Amino acid sequence: MRIVVDAFGGDNAPEQIVIGAALASFEHQVDITLTGNKEIIEKVIKDNNMSFYGDLKIVHTEDVISMHDDPTTILKAHSDSSMGLAFKELVDGNADAFVSAGSTGAIVVGGTLIVKRIKGVKRPAIASTLPSPNGHYMLMDMGANAECRPEMLKQFGVMASVYLQNVCNIENPKVGLLNIGVEDTKGDELRLEAYKLLSETENINFIGNVEARDMPKGVCDAVITDGFTGNVALKIIEGTASTLFSLIKKVLYKSLPNKLAALVIKKDLYSLKSMMDSSEVGGALLLGVSKPVVKAHGSSDAKAIKNAIRQAKTFAETDVIGKIAGNL
Amino acid sequence: MRIVVDAFGGDNAPEQIVIGAALASFEHQVDITLTGNKEIIEKVIKDNNMSFYGDLKIVHTEDVISMHDDPTTILKAHSDSSMGLAFKELVDGNADAFVSAGSTGAIVVGGTLIVKRIKGVKRPAIASTLPSPNGHYMLMDMGANAECRPEMLKQFGVMASVYLQNVCNIENPKVGLLNIGVEDTKGDELRLEAYKLLSETENINFIGNVEARDMPKGVCDAVITDGFTGNVALKIIEGTASTLFSLIKKVLYKSLPNKLAALVIKKDLYSLKSMMDSSEVGGALLLGVSKPVVKAHGSSDAKAIKNAIRQAKTFAETDVIGKIAGNL
Repeated sequence: MRIVVDAFGGDNAPEQIVIGAALASFEHQVDITLTGNKEIIEKVIKDNNMSFYGDLKIVHTEDVISMHDDPTTILKAHSDSSMGLAFKELVDGNADAFVSAGSTGAIVVGGTLIVKRIKGVKRPAIASTLPSPNGHYMLMDMGANAECRPEMLKQFGVMASVYLQNVCNIENPKVGLLNIGVEDTKGDELRLEAYKLLSETENINFIGNVEARDMPKGVCDAVITDGFTGNVALKIIEGTASTLFSLIKKVLYKSLPNKLAALVIKKDLYSLKSMMDSSEVGGALLLGVSKPVVKAHGSSDAKAIKNAIRQAKTFAETDVIGKIAGNL
Repeated sequence: MRIVVDAFGGDNAPEQIVIGAALASFEHQVDITLTGNKEIIEKVIKDNNMSFYGDLKIVHTEDVISMHDDPTTILKAHSDSSMGLAFKELVDGNADAFVSAGSTGAIVVGGTLIVKRIKGVKRPAIASTLPSPNGHYMLMDMGANAECRPEMLKQFGVMASVYLQNVCNIENPKVGLLNIGVEDTKGDELRLEAYKLLSETENINFIGNVEARDMPKGVCDAVITDGFTGNVALKIIEGTASTLFSLIKKVLYKSLPNKLAALVIKKDLYSLKSMMDSSEVGGALLLGVSKPVVKAHGSSDAKAIKNAIRQAKTFAETDVIGKIAGNL
């Protein structure tokens, strides 16, 4: 099993990406291909005293596609960027799965047009895994398609369901439609039509509409929505949690008695924070393309990259892609 | 100043509503009109040993419009419900402002078609006030219009701005458009077009797109969005905050040392929780209708009702409605 990792994608590239890849190679026993400036990558490895399990391959390029570049430049102007070459390694069969913390837009464009869609898939979409008090749930689409049609939401439900069954071993995963009320008469045209289509889909366990306030509680395994709403939802969860934790930190440092009390509960609060932390979960998936593509969070540190590589490995080990094709 | 309060709207009606109204009458020196079953209202007052400042008027009815009723029944079948009669009091000039914790849909329909729109307003919208670490911000629309056109979002920006200037005394309030990126090329058709219209609007301080993760941090005074996204956003903030606080509570009760530490910081954590609590802020506003209509949260307790009445009073004291008309 070989995973290709875009060493120059993300806010903390290349250092954290390279370290995360090295850690993952041992922990998950995978061969790693890194794309990007070879000299810099080798310096990071040396400076951090890292080594790799198995066979490390470095594909050299000096170009990088940034968050500010037009995502479609991944196809031509930036086809030889670290991300572009990572896609090439995947498509040419030199790697079994792809991981990048780079531009989401470029990953969606590259996934759709370089890796290509699974036959029958209208639009690939990004599925994020989010923490809930009793485990995790998937939110899909979290930003690939700002504009969605009802049939797309239906397909997202099928793809999420197949993934959760096969990769996460969830039997009969519960699929919900994110809406502004639970009744089937709620929402805009898109929701009304998508509700009907999802209800009629035989091979998924559609539980109906899910209200946003119940989503973080983990009431279902996959929450389906359009990419605009999903992106807003994901970022609000992040923003609210980080605002709250920083306010709690202020409380804990407020006075000497508080500081002493904080010493006692600090460890438990940290483990709660890390439980709610998306970097623990790994990356987001681009579901609907013909090879495993994992998008790590832009602010990924080494641990997040390590977990994204674990996720890419599990994704590649199962025949999710074949099963998605069979279910559509 | 007289505020009419729908005593039978909301999860905790009538007890918490009546108590909240009594408290508000003294704290904010307003006359109160309560609508609903007179016998029950009088029993609540007696059982709780409450009295009212000024002149209490009770408008009797046995009918209530519930969350499950079609909102349009407020116009005919439930026109004599506690909410219907409260609208009637407002329209007939027997009260200066309206407060209800009942069905949002019915309040929107009643506000639009019984109270009627301000001349020039395309669609009234619900503006919620949310807590941020450095104060509050307004989110509009949070659910009146699941489907929006760009001109509606533009008007929401103007209405929010006029309200914040005149009622909250914020000079030149910052208005942002909720979007999935800050660049003006981001988002779906609705966002692209609304961005253009808001940029061209002269009498507001439009700061451009705002990402959802920055919203809870209070980067602007008013966040404009369609009712679907706004409703999802509001409920996710509530859900995430309540999930986090319940997990923190678990940490605090986990062990004896934790329990002892909790005793020290409990008070500060509670005041943080109450700071983040929407019931502190008051109600949401139905902006765009020709009289002050305040919608309290469905789960409002007495304190939330009291604060919603305070908000209704301030709303009625200023000429926001006239100024909205002048600015559109």
